[in-house]
Amino acid sequence: MKRIGIIGGLGPLATIKFMELINEKLEKVNEEIEVLVINDPTTPDRTNYILDNKNPNPLSNILEMVKKLETLNASIIVMPCNTASYFYKEIEARTSIPFINIVLETVKYLKENNIKSVGLLATDGTIKSGIYEELLNTYQINYLIPTNDEQKIISSIIYDGIKSGMEIDLDKFYQVINSLKTKGAECVVLGCTELSALRQIYHLEDKFLVDAMKILADRTISYLNIKN
Amino acid sequence: MKRIGIIGGLGPLATIKFMELINEKLEKVNEEIEVLVINDPTTPDRTNYILDNKNPNPLSNILEMVKKLETLNASIIVMPCNTASYFYKEIEARTSIPFINIVLETVKYLKENNIKSVGLLATDGTIKSGIYEELLNTYQINYLIPTNDEQKIISSIIYDGIKSGMEIDLDKFYQVINSLKTKGAECVVLGCTELSALRQIYHLEDKFLVDAMKILADRTISYLNIKN
Repeated sequence: MKRIGIIGGLGPLATIKFMELINEKLEKVNEEIEVLVINDPTTPDRTNYILDNKNPNPLSNILEMVKKLETLNASIIVMPCNTASYFYKEIEARTSIPFINIVLETVKYLKENNIKSVGLLATDGTIKSGIYEELLNTYQINYLIPTNDEQKIISSIIYDGIKSGMEIDLDKFYQVINSLKTKGAECVVLGCTELSALRQIYHLEDKFLVDAMKILADRTISYLNIKN
Repeated sequence: MKRIGIIGGLGPLATIKFMELINEKLEKVNEEIEVLVINDPTTPDRTNYILDNKNPNPLSNILEMVKKLETLNASIIVMPCNTASYFYKEIEARTSIPFINIVLETVKYLKENNIKSVGLLATDGTIKSGIYEELLNTYQINYLIPTNDEQKIISSIIYDGIKSGMEIDLDKFYQVINSLKTKGAECVVLGCTELSALRQIYHLEDKFLVDAMKILADRTISYLNIKN
């Protein structure tokens, strides 16, 4: 039996929403796939570490989860967290189990869909680390990010809204999206799984939004080469 | 760190809904708890086996999940499936990790709330096995079940509705509930985690409904003696 190993808890709500996406897909296929999830909530915040590496490093917690998924004989490992993909080389070095990188798969998806210019909504850590920027450059896709003030809105939606359960101002969210549109973005990547959770909770189905977590779910299923 | 081990996939949607309940509770406490989930979708249907034990036995799959949760150092093991609680003695015999029995905890909850007469909505397997009936007898609580025709409605909601995604007739669901009410039930136990999932999806908050899965989530958190 094939097994999907999920590095979870980054954050816990996004993990549950990712499982929902995987579950919907598995319901439609003719093969039984085991789903394994490790949710370690003590993993230090990824953005805090990327912005200032004097803060606690989340890597050892991530690698511990990888080790557990290996013990459980996972066929592939996925991590529904864009910011943590900063550590993808260390994860790949730790295990021989294939690891599906959410950032790489999203950039490949954009290329396959002939996108020439894209806006990115993500944590400060994801933006600062350049993980999307570098790959988009490699694939020759123009990269647009919010202004500093706009980024504060996105960061507040992620940290105060989704992670802490405070009210979310969707008008402000769409203001940032429209601003990126005005600057030439053909679409906007929801490059933080908390924003993917937001999309699912509020049923945002705007074609302009490219949901990185949804792409990760699609690629996870394709990768397993499941019988239909 | 304390770890909640979840025997999942019975069914997969109920597992996700159970994780949502656990996550909501963990967000409100001051202690970090790891959540481990094994979803083995090949576990044979519990009701089929209980109704006719020539059908495949789910026990070995369940014990395999227990073993994996043991490997991952779970502090307690829970199984969001009422019907599978039929096997609770075999699970307890297999592991020294405390196992929280959804059926026992629900019956205790009824007793604590001075319920004298209760209706049960569950799978044919749960009803046939007598797992609720025996404990309710022990605790001297009167036990009411749907008529054969009403039970067909409940079974169809569980198997065709929740497990297979077909449309659900909530009016019929409430007809069965009202029928049990007329016969003297002070409340009705949602004694199948698919019905608990239904309650969450449709936001059914009727005080007359006692949700076994919600009780399991409450007791899981209490059991861990988490700092508040």
